[in-house]
Amino acid sequence: MPSWQEVAEAKRAQREALIPDAYKVAADSLPAASTDSVVDFPRTTGILSEREIEITETDDVSVLLKKLASGHYTAVEVLEAFIKRTCIAHQLVNPLTEIHFDDARKLAAELDAELKSTGKVRGPLHGLPMSVKDQFQIKGSDATIGYISYANKPSTADSVLVEVIKKAGAVPFVKTNLPQTIMYSESSNHLWGTTLNPHNRTLHPGGSSGGEGALVAMKGSPLGVGTDVGGSVRIPAALCGLFGLRPCSHRFPYEGAVNSLVGQITIPSVLGPLSRSLTGLTEFSKAVLAQEPWLLDPQTPSMPWNEDRFQQARTQKKLNIGVMWHDGAIKPSPPYERAIKEVLSALSDHDIVDFEAYKTNEAMEILVEAFIADGGKDISAAIAPLDEPLGPCLSGIGKPEYTGHQVWLANKRKLEFQKAYLDHWNATAKQTKDGRPIDILIVPGMAYTAIPPGNDIYVAYTGIFNLVDYPAVVLPITKVDPAVDGLAKRSGDFLSEDDEKWYKKWDAEKLVNAPVSVQIVGRRYEEEAVLGYAEQVWNAFAASKTK
Amino acid sequence: MPSWQEVAEAKRAQREALIPDAYKVAADSLPAASTDSVVDFPRTTGILSEREIEITETDDVSVLLKKLASGHYTAVEVLEAFIKRTCIAHQLVNPLTEIHFDDARKLAAELDAELKSTGKVRGPLHGLPMSVKDQFQIKGSDATIGYISYANKPSTADSVLVEVIKKAGAVPFVKTNLPQTIMYSESSNHLWGTTLNPHNRTLHPGGSSGGEGALVAMKGSPLGVGTDVGGSVRIPAALCGLFGLRPCSHRFPYEGAVNSLVGQITIPSVLGPLSRSLTGLTEFSKAVLAQEPWLLDPQTPSMPWNEDRFQQARTQKKLNIGVMWHDGAIKPSPPYERAIKEVLSALSDHDIVDFEAYKTNEAMEILVEAFIADGGKDISAAIAPLDEPLGPCLSGIGKPEYTGHQVWLANKRKLEFQKAYLDHWNATAKQTKDGRPIDILIVPGMAYTAIPPGNDIYVAYTGIFNLVDYPAVVLPITKVDPAVDGLAKRSGDFLSEDDEKWYKKWDAEKLVNAPVSVQIVGRRYEEEAVLGYAEQVWNAFAASKTK
Repeated sequence: MPSWQEVAEAKRAQREALIPDAYKVAADSLPAASTDSVVDFPRTTGILSEREIEITETDDVSVLLKKLASGHYTAVEVLEAFIKRTCIAHQLVNPLTEIHFDDARKLAAELDAELKSTGKVRGPLHGLPMSVKDQFQIKGSDATIGYISYANKPSTADSVLVEVIKKAGAVPFVKTNLPQTIMYSESSNHLWGTTLNPHNRTLHPGGSSGGEGALVAMKGSPLGVGTDVGGSVRIPAALCGLFGLRPCSHRFPYEGAVNSLVGQITIPSVLGPLSRSLTGLTEFSKAVLAQEPWLLDPQTPSMPWNEDRFQQARTQKKLNIGVMWHDGAIKPSPPYERAIKEVLSALSDHDIVDFEAYKTNEAMEILVEAFIADGGKDISAAIAPLDEPLGPCLSGIGKPEYTGHQVWLANKRKLEFQKAYLDHWNATAKQTKDGRPIDILIVPGMAYTAIPPGNDIYVAYTGIFNLVDYPAVVLPITKVDPAVDGLAKRSGDFLSEDDEKWYKKWDAEKLVNAPVSVQIVGRRYEEEAVLGYAEQVWNAFAASKTK
Repeated sequence: MPSWQEVAEAKRAQREALIPDAYKVAADSLPAASTDSVVDFPRTTGILSEREIEITETDDVSVLLKKLASGHYTAVEVLEAFIKRTCIAHQLVNPLTEIHFDDARKLAAELDAELKSTGKVRGPLHGLPMSVKDQFQIKGSDATIGYISYANKPSTADSVLVEVIKKAGAVPFVKTNLPQTIMYSESSNHLWGTTLNPHNRTLHPGGSSGGEGALVAMKGSPLGVGTDVGGSVRIPAALCGLFGLRPCSHRFPYEGAVNSLVGQITIPSVLGPLSRSLTGLTEFSKAVLAQEPWLLDPQTPSMPWNEDRFQQARTQKKLNIGVMWHDGAIKPSPPYERAIKEVLSALSDHDIVDFEAYKTNEAMEILVEAFIADGGKDISAAIAPLDEPLGPCLSGIGKPEYTGHQVWLANKRKLEFQKAYLDHWNATAKQTKDGRPIDILIVPGMAYTAIPPGNDIYVAYTGIFNLVDYPAVVLPITKVDPAVDGLAKRSGDFLSEDDEKWYKKWDAEKLVNAPVSVQIVGRRYEEEAVLGYAEQVWNAFAASKTK
């Protein structure tokens, strides 16, 4: 039997072989490792034509879809442009796992032919190249989720998500990297290596959907799909300067995605989009729900896209907005306060109230408890066949396995917390001028910006919304600027030892260019509302920046 | 410390004291125990006026609501009529646990005053007396769920369901009986005793919501609320000749209901209505969802009543209907085949196809596995304080406790089954004339009709739809008629030993008058559709009976 190193090496060689030489930059022309952003490097390589640069830099997914639907761009040329940019991105930040260029080219050609012959698009995502996290199965390639023991077992069918986006006209063309076990918020594993942050390659892109974060930020893909059980869509979105959506449990079809901690249902993992535009999230949500995924995924509730609610939210005159500046346990890095203030300065027409953090430490205990109940058996079984070394992960490895009754008691605690949090949210009615509770909550995107790989993690700013199961949209607001953020010193006002520990990692000079984001959080199963409200916030903010 | 017998005796004495003497029938005027129906006995007692008989025999809940809204009946008189009939019913079949006549009278008077002064109803259930299963908390009374150790701990707040129906104008006035542990499909416990079937008091009413089944069948309540984790709404509805709805997980608000197996989330228990009219189920569903219960219950998805889907379903011209005659493991008692044939004879305009049972035994293993994972610890803890004797129950008592990882694996098996069942349903597209899958599935309401208390149970005909989480409506079709059903003999064609065992319980003479029902099953989270389709089936069937 080959060693894990041999299997991994062979897989990486296969991956390398699928990248056309013509789309590779000569090693001596690659930028040196530094804190500099490499996001714009691909346009300087000469590999992309002017038109291909225009295509790949069309951040607004709605615009791209219109140009595909009108025939202004062909699906084939859009795909090839993104393939080129993805290949260059891969050399710089290592976001890819499995590559499906040829399948995608064939599909794009079919879509062009179909549009030409029928005059009609196949669906709302007609011709849009899309990347998906390695968990999603595409027929013919592996879905290793970073476990070397899962290699060389090609998928025999597409995951429902892949089936559904293809039905909607999208062109899945690559799968992307994630951490071993998926239970960590960096993106490194022994099979595919470590993904870096394009804005500052000394830093990680977040995780677990870090391959998506890095690839979409590099403009190698206009729209990617990640998964989120503790923040795994939102953390890479936040750390890579992207828009991201964490929907509620099962709203989008997870069926057929490979996962770790299989059967853990206390805190369900969900899938959500990452994009360089808010329209990317909305187009994705509408398109996926338009395919009636509940006919294919037994867990997806029969809830069509609610256009009325979306329109109501995006045009509602007066919002009640709660702001949680910090979670009561660990204050976010300094630029987050700056980011929230910048957002709020654009929202003066609305009623803004402070939202008190609710029992963050207890919430994190409940969250972690859900993940460790098997005593690490699931992960141990995955690494055992090839004796792969285990990296850091939020799991039960090394902890005692729960009993069945303890799992039930953990479920009970979780439900009690959900109820208490709902009451806490409803109680904001006492703070607002019109006596209605808040419509949305604005919170920091994360406790910290991107930091170097191999670090500790702290996921309470995102994990709390997995626990209570609320939808959340990440908006990219600003970047670390040492000239401003380097001056924001704290001393002696620490909430806890951990707060102090995390503050001490703060070094604006080293974290230069790291994106800084906020989350817009809404009520449970109101994805339409949170997307509509997020649009209002974003438009107000964007307008304030151009003043 | 008092013994469990003493506590139980005191509780029963309290209950007895809350029943006005004027509403009691003299012991020597009560009917003798026999197979005769006692449903019509209350109207012969002289306790109810002609008008009160008219009120309590208004089976159609929509009609009753209209007469309450118009002031044709006052809430006070409607309540008192049902209180009278409930008190008589209680003497006959023992359905009650906690009694709230005085609270209810006060609320009914307020509703009358409100309608008089404002000209407006409080909500869609204005003035409707309602019974609720003992699990639901009403401020001021116990919610023992039949555990004597839970006695004398009065609820300090209403369950969300109770809060919501009161907001909608309903008048909760009694709570109803259930089996100890709730995990059995009869309705007997050491605290409140045994509830009997009004159609034949030698038989049980089903369970676990058997108090509701018996009380609503006795016309003591126009609309009751039960819960269902394996059939506990549908079994008493079926065995008592009522309409009943099992909605999908969390569609209606369970928050604040007391339960056993707390924290068991593999197969969630749901709540649903029982009524003597299909309109009772629809009025309940619309009214509850109109109160936006998701603002109070963190598990209830934000899914308003979908009137469009309801109207579409109730007026759809051509239905594709699957019929599952038996579950492949145990054939239902003879009159079920007769009942289904009677229904189908009214549906000749539609496309009827046979639906093959799908892995019933495996489904039941998965269902039971969900309930026993704690090794019975939850139930053991409930009976321990007073050393109450344990009755029969579907639980982990006496079985080894699962480990955390085994619970996860059980969840995984359940999800795989759900997916396979969905594919199986979708595959009916190959059988239908128009190539669409079936819209609804018709299955027997239960494997057997009501049988004597203290029997075995078999819940696969209902439990399968808890496992896959599909909505189901029970329609009462006929009753056991020894002249017909006594002739339906089987010999040698048994599917299994259990099939033979259950068949041998069949004795039409002893089961005379026992109701026979079917379930109409729809797709997940399509309560509106299944109610609309059920209306079509019911109206066609009812019309065929009057021909």
